[in-house]
Amino acid sequence: MERVAIIGASMTQFGDRDSWILELLEEAGEKALDDANIDAAELDHLYVANMASGEFEGQTGIMNALAHDLGAVPAFTQRIDQTSSSGGAGTYAAWQSIASGASDLTMLVGGEKMTHRSTPEATDIIASLIHPAEYKHGLTLPSFAGLTARLYLESYDVPREALADVAVKNHKNGMDNSHAQFRKEVDKETVLSSPMVADPLRLYDFCPITDGSAALVFAPESVAEEYTDDYVTIAGIAGATDTHVVHEREDITTMGGVVESSRQAYDMADLEPDDVDFAELHDMFTILEVLQLEDLGFFEKGEGWRAARDGITTRDGELPINTSGGLKSKGHPLGASGVAQVYELYQQLIGEAGDRQVSGDIGLACNVGGFGNCVTTTILEGSQ
Amino acid sequence: MERVAIIGASMTQFGDRDSWILELLEEAGEKALDDANIDAAELDHLYVANMASGEFEGQTGIMNALAHDLGAVPAFTQRIDQTSSSGGAGTYAAWQSIASGASDLTMLVGGEKMTHRSTPEATDIIASLIHPAEYKHGLTLPSFAGLTARLYLESYDVPREALADVAVKNHKNGMDNSHAQFRKEVDKETVLSSPMVADPLRLYDFCPITDGSAALVFAPESVAEEYTDDYVTIAGIAGATDTHVVHEREDITTMGGVVESSRQAYDMADLEPDDVDFAELHDMFTILEVLQLEDLGFFEKGEGWRAARDGITTRDGELPINTSGGLKSKGHPLGASGVAQVYELYQQLIGEAGDRQVSGDIGLACNVGGFGNCVTTTILEGSQ
Repeated sequence: MERVAIIGASMTQFGDRDSWILELLEEAGEKALDDANIDAAELDHLYVANMASGEFEGQTGIMNALAHDLGAVPAFTQRIDQTSSSGGAGTYAAWQSIASGASDLTMLVGGEKMTHRSTPEATDIIASLIHPAEYKHGLTLPSFAGLTARLYLESYDVPREALADVAVKNHKNGMDNSHAQFRKEVDKETVLSSPMVADPLRLYDFCPITDGSAALVFAPESVAEEYTDDYVTIAGIAGATDTHVVHEREDITTMGGVVESSRQAYDMADLEPDDVDFAELHDMFTILEVLQLEDLGFFEKGEGWRAARDGITTRDGELPINTSGGLKSKGHPLGASGVAQVYELYQQLIGEAGDRQVSGDIGLACNVGGFGNCVTTTILEGSQ
Repeated sequence: MERVAIIGASMTQFGDRDSWILELLEEAGEKALDDANIDAAELDHLYVANMASGEFEGQTGIMNALAHDLGAVPAFTQRIDQTSSSGGAGTYAAWQSIASGASDLTMLVGGEKMTHRSTPEATDIIASLIHPAEYKHGLTLPSFAGLTARLYLESYDVPREALADVAVKNHKNGMDNSHAQFRKEVDKETVLSSPMVADPLRLYDFCPITDGSAALVFAPESVAEEYTDDYVTIAGIAGATDTHVVHEREDITTMGGVVESSRQAYDMADLEPDDVDFAELHDMFTILEVLQLEDLGFFEKGEGWRAARDGITTRDGELPINTSGGLKSKGHPLGASGVAQVYELYQQLIGEAGDRQVSGDIGLACNVGGFGNCVTTTILEGSQ
């Protein structure tokens, strides 16, 4: 199997953008091509990770439009939808395109344009991924999060404040990310007194609705040096699912897709959780960062909540988590988020993360679709 | 590169179905699992080819729902959208999953549920794939087809009746396909006197709006015999694009994506057009079958219209085309169509096509998205 390198990466400003989806995709795509020092015409595969441009904007066919506008025609192109983990799934598809020998040079661009829709409208579009029977009973992703947080706090006798520590940490990291939607520090009191959304979770436990995009360029590792010295290698990557009907899970505080995809990714990389130096986790809700810390094998079950509180996952801790600010502060443009996670790992591994720089040569990204319905885990290794 | 086999296949009844998208996908998925004699729990990858369940039915997340309902969790799953060629793109993704070594057993299920929407509504959803500037001027896919047909007929001094011959042939083939939406013979006079849709094309030059699904099971060729004797091998497969803005093409009677994807697929298979024994082409409009006959290298430019008229592409001709009835008679449930093309080739190559059986051991499928925007060409080889 051909080892796969990432030879260029980009992300756009995340936030409330006055551009439609195609412009966002083009912006990230052009930046990544520049970063990899290649021309669009050299690409033979172009993947677009996007959940719902048809529903958000009434526009489909965006993968072909992007190939056209960048100048990548006649490259193969395809849209990949795995809801909020489309970016992780896109990374996996791009990896397969190179590993299978089908492609010599692939670009993945992930993006979503959401903020022009009201919060109820956007929530409704996203909730269309939930089993209709559960949705009918009022279960949206935020309400699943509330139920799960309550069970977790009760099961493991966890102080409510521990979830606020996650938000505080990620907002602090986001302060140093010029692309982040929110660049403001928040303190624990602010989180704990913000409006209630889904008891016990409050507004500051949730990521925002965001516009933005991000892009990655992939090539066989054997030729990566012909393009750049600043490349990283995909050491392990895998995707897995959990039940679509969430109430059928044995324990909603364990995300089966995280457990299974990371197990496969560790196996492929021949690494253990202990080998990971830093990670970007899918903190769509604060509770999700805690669950992933456990389900990825970094902490025992019921112990992940201590990480942010005890400073283990801050930038100067043993295992920095979400140095980018995470979805919480950076924002969550669905199709872009998994791509932007890998962008952050790439920046860290090539030593270009600026004020956010941490040390280490193994980074992990965990991208979660739905309520853990679909998950991709990606493990990157620096080349230096 | 690991060679990839198809070890099972299915399609559902195409037509006006009283089932929602998930039921259609499940039906084809279960039939294909039965055909391959495997259990869903053995799958490690499950792809869903579907353009627009969110727009047609307000339901997304269908890939995870399908994995759940079939019993394939925790297999990786993903939705693939390449508009009307999603099925071909899905075949390519499934091939990559095996060829890269990521998967030992992959299923692809393609489907679309459309008939519950009015024709103008469905046309509008499909037209969302067109460049907004062209759509504003009234250009839908049928109108592109009309313009192209007119130019083709004039450029090559072709009698209008030649396009009717395509419809007559494909309806005749569909008579013997119990899964086809339309099982009625039509004569040339009926085609030529049917209501005008986009001059010079009339109602019977167009495929219908259809519900349905189809599925394929993939494994490494090296283990195919452990599952079944009835397997076929993917000899060549490739995808390519043409401009998104159709009016920027040098010549709209040539489909660049067909030319490029087939060139790559022939190269991979080490075959020439002459080696192909039969093919399933994307006859969304009669003119498209003619253009593909030329762009795939079967006929010189301006000569493809003679094929149906002269009986070359009928079932007893030298190069049978659309033995299934094609999109024209079988129907065109967007995400299913490319998968159902491969299903027909599979049936032919294993000798199970019944009254439609033709001879030969090399079959080709050409699946076209948009107005040739995205195209996948797949070449299958029989194992017997």
